[in-house]
Amino acid sequence: MSVAALFNPRSIALVGATDKSGWSISTLMNLRTYGFAGPVYLVNPRGGVVHGEQAHQSLADIPGTVDLAYVMVPTPAVLGVLREGAKLGIRSYVILTAGFGETGPEGARLEAEIVDFARENGLTVLGPNGNGYINAAAGTTPYGLPIPSPLLSGSVGVVLQSGALASSVLGFAQARNVGVSLLVSMGNESLMTVADVIDYLVDDPATKAIVLFLESIRDPAEFSRAARRALLAGKPLVALKIGRSRLASHTAQAHTGALVGDDNVIDAVFRKLGVIRVRSLEDLIITAGLLAEVGPLPGGRVGVVTPSGGASEIIADRAEDEGLELPPFAPETVERLREIVPAFATVQNPLDVTGYVLIDRTLLGRALGVVTADPGIDAVMLLSEPPRVAPPDPAPTLAVYASSARRIAEAPKPVVVVSNVLTDVTEFGRTVMKETGFPYVAGGIEHGVNAIGAAVRWSRSYRAALARDAAGEPGGTDGAAAVAAVAALVEDASGVWAEHRAAALLSSAGLPVVPSRLVYDEESAVAAAGEFGYPVVLKAAADGLGHKSDIGGVRLGLSGERDVREAYREVTAAVSSAVIGQVGALVQPQRRGGVELLVGVVRDPAWGLTLAVGLGGVWVEALRDTALRVLPVEPGEVRQALEELRGVTLLRGARGTEPADLDAVADVVARIAAFAESLGDRLESLEINPLLVNGSRVEALDALVTWAEPLR
Amino acid sequence: MSVAALFNPRSIALVGATDKSGWSISTLMNLRTYGFAGPVYLVNPRGGVVHGEQAHQSLADIPGTVDLAYVMVPTPAVLGVLREGAKLGIRSYVILTAGFGETGPEGARLEAEIVDFARENGLTVLGPNGNGYINAAAGTTPYGLPIPSPLLSGSVGVVLQSGALASSVLGFAQARNVGVSLLVSMGNESLMTVADVIDYLVDDPATKAIVLFLESIRDPAEFSRAARRALLAGKPLVALKIGRSRLASHTAQAHTGALVGDDNVIDAVFRKLGVIRVRSLEDLIITAGLLAEVGPLPGGRVGVVTPSGGASEIIADRAEDEGLELPPFAPETVERLREIVPAFATVQNPLDVTGYVLIDRTLLGRALGVVTADPGIDAVMLLSEPPRVAPPDPAPTLAVYASSARRIAEAPKPVVVVSNVLTDVTEFGRTVMKETGFPYVAGGIEHGVNAIGAAVRWSRSYRAALARDAAGEPGGTDGAAAVAAVAALVEDASGVWAEHRAAALLSSAGLPVVPSRLVYDEESAVAAAGEFGYPVVLKAAADGLGHKSDIGGVRLGLSGERDVREAYREVTAAVSSAVIGQVGALVQPQRRGGVELLVGVVRDPAWGLTLAVGLGGVWVEALRDTALRVLPVEPGEVRQALEELRGVTLLRGARGTEPADLDAVADVVARIAAFAESLGDRLESLEINPLLVNGSRVEALDALVTWAEPLR
Repeated sequence: MSVAALFNPRSIALVGATDKSGWSISTLMNLRTYGFAGPVYLVNPRGGVVHGEQAHQSLADIPGTVDLAYVMVPTPAVLGVLREGAKLGIRSYVILTAGFGETGPEGARLEAEIVDFARENGLTVLGPNGNGYINAAAGTTPYGLPIPSPLLSGSVGVVLQSGALASSVLGFAQARNVGVSLLVSMGNESLMTVADVIDYLVDDPATKAIVLFLESIRDPAEFSRAARRALLAGKPLVALKIGRSRLASHTAQAHTGALVGDDNVIDAVFRKLGVIRVRSLEDLIITAGLLAEVGPLPGGRVGVVTPSGGASEIIADRAEDEGLELPPFAPETVERLREIVPAFATVQNPLDVTGYVLIDRTLLGRALGVVTADPGIDAVMLLSEPPRVAPPDPAPTLAVYASSARRIAEAPKPVVVVSNVLTDVTEFGRTVMKETGFPYVAGGIEHGVNAIGAAVRWSRSYRAALARDAAGEPGGTDGAAAVAAVAALVEDASGVWAEHRAAALLSSAGLPVVPSRLVYDEESAVAAAGEFGYPVVLKAAADGLGHKSDIGGVRLGLSGERDVREAYREVTAAVSSAVIGQVGALVQPQRRGGVELLVGVVRDPAWGLTLAVGLGGVWVEALRDTALRVLPVEPGEVRQALEELRGVTLLRGARGTEPADLDAVADVVARIAAFAESLGDRLESLEINPLLVNGSRVEALDALVTWAEPLR
Repeated sequence: MSVAALFNPRSIALVGATDKSGWSISTLMNLRTYGFAGPVYLVNPRGGVVHGEQAHQSLADIPGTVDLAYVMVPTPAVLGVLREGAKLGIRSYVILTAGFGETGPEGARLEAEIVDFARENGLTVLGPNGNGYINAAAGTTPYGLPIPSPLLSGSVGVVLQSGALASSVLGFAQARNVGVSLLVSMGNESLMTVADVIDYLVDDPATKAIVLFLESIRDPAEFSRAARRALLAGKPLVALKIGRSRLASHTAQAHTGALVGDDNVIDAVFRKLGVIRVRSLEDLIITAGLLAEVGPLPGGRVGVVTPSGGASEIIADRAEDEGLELPPFAPETVERLREIVPAFATVQNPLDVTGYVLIDRTLLGRALGVVTADPGIDAVMLLSEPPRVAPPDPAPTLAVYASSARRIAEAPKPVVVVSNVLTDVTEFGRTVMKETGFPYVAGGIEHGVNAIGAAVRWSRSYRAALARDAAGEPGGTDGAAAVAAVAALVEDASGVWAEHRAAALLSSAGLPVVPSRLVYDEESAVAAAGEFGYPVVLKAAADGLGHKSDIGGVRLGLSGERDVREAYREVTAAVSSAVIGQVGALVQPQRRGGVELLVGVVRDPAWGLTLAVGLGGVWVEALRDTALRVLPVEPGEVRQALEELRGVTLLRGARGTEPADLDAVADVVARIAAFAESLGDRLESLEINPLLVNGSRVEALDALVTWAEPLR
């Protein structure tokens, strides 16, 4: 497969060209309008004149070489076109024709034939059921829908799993004065996938940021690989991934036939891969445009310079939402600003230089100069925008914007320009930006602050990825030795391992588990209790036993021999009817106080092992206070996850008890995660609930392991 | 004060007109450009030619009657202008001049003089420190900043506490093709307040929705009154209230000198008043524009009709965020849609009629007709928008839009048109809308769904307000008798009433409180425990005793006489050093299980008594899972508040215990709130923590009341 060849043909054949098809008309019009330099051949089996030109009856009749065939023939005829083309040496195909896998089993069969043929013959295919692509940088536009004019060429790559949204995305990019390098409408992704296009765009020097509209991620492993590569290359992926709601997940299934994964896992995956997730088409383009312009931001401490008190207050509110820090200005900054702004202005961050900008047009620029020099600021947000309407004499306006542009370009820190509200960059505005070099303007405070927040988070991921890369890729597990050690233990594992087996497994790996003794009679239970010291806990123990507390299989706070004997009889009796096989009991010392966490590792069908950490006990389900991470994780990431929990205040000692040692907790959780990874592919889930945290003491009080059935 | 006269003058004097002031130039230009029909007089003490016209040296020199004086003179000269004007019978003033209360004590003194003089002489004053107003409906525009052209007259009233944002708001409204009836830049609100302007707009037949940009609400009682009036009149208030972040609250203080209240209380207040709160300038205009067009929506069940699968999936996600219901279509709707849409389309809500709209331009309209007839749908969201660019022959385009417009106008349900992305309505788009009657288009899915969600919530508030109004205004308290009964009890109340007094007070009102006995010696404690039955609880009791558990003043789970004696000695000893006066103990039966709630009623300095209900015990601070309501509340509202809590799952029986009777809980909480109201103005706070809920049993286990010092 050669993706680059498909996107850069020197000649194109439109196969199935006809005056009756809007797609045919648009595709030819696009190629003619946007400057495709090579020959475009029309193919129609009936020949004759199509779109005012002589059509060829088949690919074979074309006199020259064809680099790309754009296929619009009826569904059953598509394979024939590929066969003929392959024979003629045509390697690249865009298939616009629909009626394949998206329509049902018969279509899927036709699609499989195409895939098989293309694979066998080394063809590169985009589609089917996609509108094609727009290579704006090259002026190559084999694309089946009208392209809104002007087509701005620039540094944002766009990959869409929805054909119908492409026009909106293009139109919005144009309104924001954001130029596109390449836009691809993926269609069914039978052969070329989103990951392939990402790879191409990462290698494309014109592309600085990549926009993704995703309905489903068909090949998680490939996507992850391509996303990691993009991150290391410093090319941000900005994604609108639909299917957050249960309803949408149903909708997507209806439309694409692909599985829409659990949305929370997608959040965790994107976080790990450094993919920026947005919720609107506006944020998609505004965020990508910003990152394409300014690149990685050095940090999240933002200085804000505005000509309006009201706007600066909206910014303060929104910055807090986005986790941006607006630190107070340094004393020397305050002093220098006092010399510039009117006496009645309040010098603070966010800065309102006041309406005097209307009288002194240099005021905002001079204030910007001072704020960009502040040592405690990583980046500056400047509230400004290009003019909408040309004044009778544009020269003074151009001079003011040129001077601002120079100041921004020469600033020692990145300056992000944001307008008050989201209105189009007008034609005159575009002219001013072009002629003066005035930079990209994020559209409106609302979306602008979203974009800055996303850019700061992405920049952190980028730097972390570079650091990890420099240090060698993270292992995640403790290596082959550990794997070998547990391999024997779990060789024939299957079904559910209840507490007594699960706890033993964790102990064998050196993880902290509350001491316990498995006993099968009253006497042994009493003896074990005596060793541990009272009070003790007694829990029924049997293979396959799940929610033992629900059926009376747990007794807490036993304070003497009589209690223990009675409890042993009770818990074993309670469960004996529920399980097959021997029933005994676990004796454990009773723990008091502390905070109960849940630590779960679950295998997601698409993304693999995923760690969930949250408040344990009843609070898990009641409060859904859980943070997710895709494995592998390092203790630092776990600590971050713990700090995302609302319940972190409890760990910090809100109950008046000793604050937990969060690093110690994170370390244990990361070890649990690594251990789960070492258990091999048949591990379905490992859950510790509760993991009791008491200061720096961290101990698993109960555990459950579920295995997939072994392959025969 | 006559607000209507100020906004509708027949003649205007610009006092302080000068060629050197941009404000002066703009104001005159605005009046000349936008069609003010009456005479405009320029006043400058030096006389001469100003803005190319002969200026008068004083108001007295003007030959005709002056209805409105627009004052731009230096700060110290403003009072003189008012004096002269009052003598001449001029009743209305807009004061643009700054330098008053916003600058410090000296400015505040000057402002107070103006206020006093205006009050004494019955003058109507807008400002100072405001840019004036734009009465677009009348073409009267005494406004000190350039007004972006064209000025669209329409049905949205705009009231702003920030002068600098007015241009952005106007520009954005224009880009959305939203016409304004009146825009007012409030300035310092020394005399005319936001509430006065709301009152005017409620009476103004041209105004259908009102936009507010608020930094602070200076007179909560007046604002509440005006907001209630607007709600009953069916005129939605859509507010962007800044100061959500701690930083912004600081900023606002610096700028306006006014107190910024606790933001969560503002949420509760707006909810009670039916004020729609938005977070962006875009939502402000888009939401108001939508409500001005469609009025109240009959319900929240939305049918969605789109030409795009991708868009319908984004809508499904966002609708869930906004609490909108997208119910499945009725069987007859599905059947009729199947006849219309292509065979490969999936018939569901949200509906994607597919890209065949490009081939059959009637497809979307016909599908709309079917969906608006669905009996289970309250309103329809249609994805469509006016064209951006005029085709060579606009006639067919106009015909298509005219037909859509007719279908929408004749639909049996409200149809809200939303575009894919937020781009300007272009000049051609505006022409098409005007000529075909194509309705308002909410800008983009992101903001459009926000607006529909807000409109649904507002419509509910509106209907509820109408119903309450028809039934007579809600009492909130149980009437004068109850007030009289407790008046004696709390006559000399002051300071903190600890549990033993607070609980007695609650009991006296018939509220459910755990039984308790106040004892002052061991013997009585043992006797009380015997009566209640073991186990019991012992708590230290003394006047002014606050957090007794923190100092060892509480002993739980006492199971015999010896325990009680020991506990009595310990708890009284523990607190005796902390308090003055007699120390005893409360004996109570020990309660087990259940869910602990916190119920607090606190007096907000601006908005009065506010109810907070949330998870009790340690969870209050740890999880901040609390819902607020401003009093009075009815049980239905309390139940809604309970259902907003994340912890409601615990009340529903997540612990495996008996589910709580939420109506019973809501009833008790509403009675607690009503009782708090009956306690009079000196009640500072009443807190019950925990209120124990066990099935339908609801009981206060501890309480604390705080009083303001009595007035002498």
